[in-house]
Amino acid sequence: MRGAVLYGPRDVRFEERAAPAILMPADAIIRISATCVCGSDLWPYRGLQPNAGPTPMGHEYCGIVEDVGSAVKLVKPGQFVIGSFFASDNTCPHCRAGYQTSCRHREFVGGAQAPLLRVPLADGTLVPTPAVPSDDLIPSLLAVSDVMGTGWFAAEAANVKPGATVVVVGDGAVGLLGVLSARLKGAQRIIAMSRHQTRQRLAREFGATDIVSERGEEGVARIREITDGIGADSVLECVGMQQSMMQAIRCVRPGGSVGYVGVPHGVELDGEQLFFAHVHLHGGPAPVRRYLPVLIEQVWDRTINPGKVFDLTLPLDQVAQGYRAMDERRAIKTLLRP
Amino acid sequence: MRGAVLYGPRDVRFEERAAPAILMPADAIIRISATCVCGSDLWPYRGLQPNAGPTPMGHEYCGIVEDVGSAVKLVKPGQFVIGSFFASDNTCPHCRAGYQTSCRHREFVGGAQAPLLRVPLADGTLVPTPAVPSDDLIPSLLAVSDVMGTGWFAAEAANVKPGATVVVVGDGAVGLLGVLSARLKGAQRIIAMSRHQTRQRLAREFGATDIVSERGEEGVARIREITDGIGADSVLECVGMQQSMMQAIRCVRPGGSVGYVGVPHGVELDGEQLFFAHVHLHGGPAPVRRYLPVLIEQVWDRTINPGKVFDLTLPLDQVAQGYRAMDERRAIKTLLRP
Repeated sequence: MRGAVLYGPRDVRFEERAAPAILMPADAIIRISATCVCGSDLWPYRGLQPNAGPTPMGHEYCGIVEDVGSAVKLVKPGQFVIGSFFASDNTCPHCRAGYQTSCRHREFVGGAQAPLLRVPLADGTLVPTPAVPSDDLIPSLLAVSDVMGTGWFAAEAANVKPGATVVVVGDGAVGLLGVLSARLKGAQRIIAMSRHQTRQRLAREFGATDIVSERGEEGVARIREITDGIGADSVLECVGMQQSMMQAIRCVRPGGSVGYVGVPHGVELDGEQLFFAHVHLHGGPAPVRRYLPVLIEQVWDRTINPGKVFDLTLPLDQVAQGYRAMDERRAIKTLLRP
Repeated sequence: MRGAVLYGPRDVRFEERAAPAILMPADAIIRISATCVCGSDLWPYRGLQPNAGPTPMGHEYCGIVEDVGSAVKLVKPGQFVIGSFFASDNTCPHCRAGYQTSCRHREFVGGAQAPLLRVPLADGTLVPTPAVPSDDLIPSLLAVSDVMGTGWFAAEAANVKPGATVVVVGDGAVGLLGVLSARLKGAQRIIAMSRHQTRQRLAREFGATDIVSERGEEGVARIREITDGIGADSVLECVGMQQSMMQAIRCVRPGGSVGYVGVPHGVELDGEQLFFAHVHLHGGPAPVRRYLPVLIEQVWDRTINPGKVFDLTLPLDQVAQGYRAMDERRAIKTLLRP
């Protein structure tokens, strides 16, 4: 089969590689219905994260189960399933506490930008949909695999309550779905920080009540002004850089919460500053598995449509163009169909 | 009057200084019944924190109201009152949210190691006891002014729940009262990290079920062992140094909480490490004012006896000896009586 492989900065190739096979009794093989390019894929794509040689890319996926190992009991061939970027056994103490991305046996699921994918710990990782979905549901079901689950976790980690004033830092797909998640949790005021018109539009569609285009000092001042000098109850940090993290911490009210889901790159936090900010801080790799059942249900019911973040759809063999469009911010998120 | 003044490292003098007076209409003047030396006083005492010239010391207090300003409505002369180290109006948005130590009008209350003390924003800051207390209640009422309120906040910030496994880092008065607070909140297992016999004994008396004397790597390994490799649900960080903070973060389970109340000195947190630890982090200067009513009630009922942390009582004029005993760890906490 052919799949996406990252060779180095801005060098993604669609090339022949071995089709995955059942390696462990708990594995499943999935025939991918749709996959996509993640904001976090752009870190190694841009050379900002070390890349140890050619790497099969992609960790967002949904599709039809093709084959399962001898120990797989729940997942059946023919089912349409969705999983997260970390495989998890869903039975260890960390999984039972709802932190499947810290599963004792977690394993990163890589190489999803391909027609076939091996998923370890299939029973713990994969959640089937009620039936094979109609084609128009595919983008939203795919979004649940990572960006929607991550935006949802950001809102949970930021402790968004009904009536709250919420700030979302970052206007990528996760930030935009953070806006949607905050709305679903009943936030009254949702301030999206964005300077890109198409993203602002989608943020408004997902429930943003205010847009702030300023950044840094000016951005903080603007949020203070909007919130009568109090600060936000909850801030969702969906970028992972020093500036965005400090922006989040400085926008929150004393006793408020920052939920951070952007993988931190070079972020250092000053203990004394955190202390006097009186902030609640929680984040990490989103335990998407925890949310899959409820989010799948909402997509299935057509209550939510997170698939709207995909503003570019390409055949899988044009994956390199998909990366380029996101790198140049011409696309919010690229969906790929094998 | 004479009061304690810090001149420089290990140079506390008990000397004549001006008696405080009503400066603002919201002020009160208190005749101190008891005051004490705080672990945080040791930072400047040891020269580890800059000290801009001679500084009147002490921020823990209880006593009888002697005089009030013209705007004071609730507090009356003759009442026995307790307040926190930050004066607060108790009406601003931050106070109403329970974060009185981030009050918009907060003012540090200094110079309590003296017979008389000026407390700003008296109505917002001071809480009276039901009557003038009997003498044996004074130590515990004084403890509520800071260390008990701070230990309680540590347990709240660390999200201690009934049945929880809790680790307490730091065996000073705050850490020991963190143990007591965790017990009051129904923790099942309370692991105190301490290598001092007298402190271990008091920790056990307050409810510690386990003592760990190892530190650093070994301390973390020991906690992992005790918790079946899972980590603690809640960790109370009651020191404020890099090593203690990292100890706390590395002892907690994914999804667990660290409550930190030791004022951070040179603490830097790595964003990526926090992210993958999946930790909830909350702390800051304890909003003691929030807890005063409930903690005073429990002391008054003799449900709790936090005054046990005072293992040295001196007349106020021997304040320098009180500092020395704590600096040399001969005393946990020194109570001073004018």
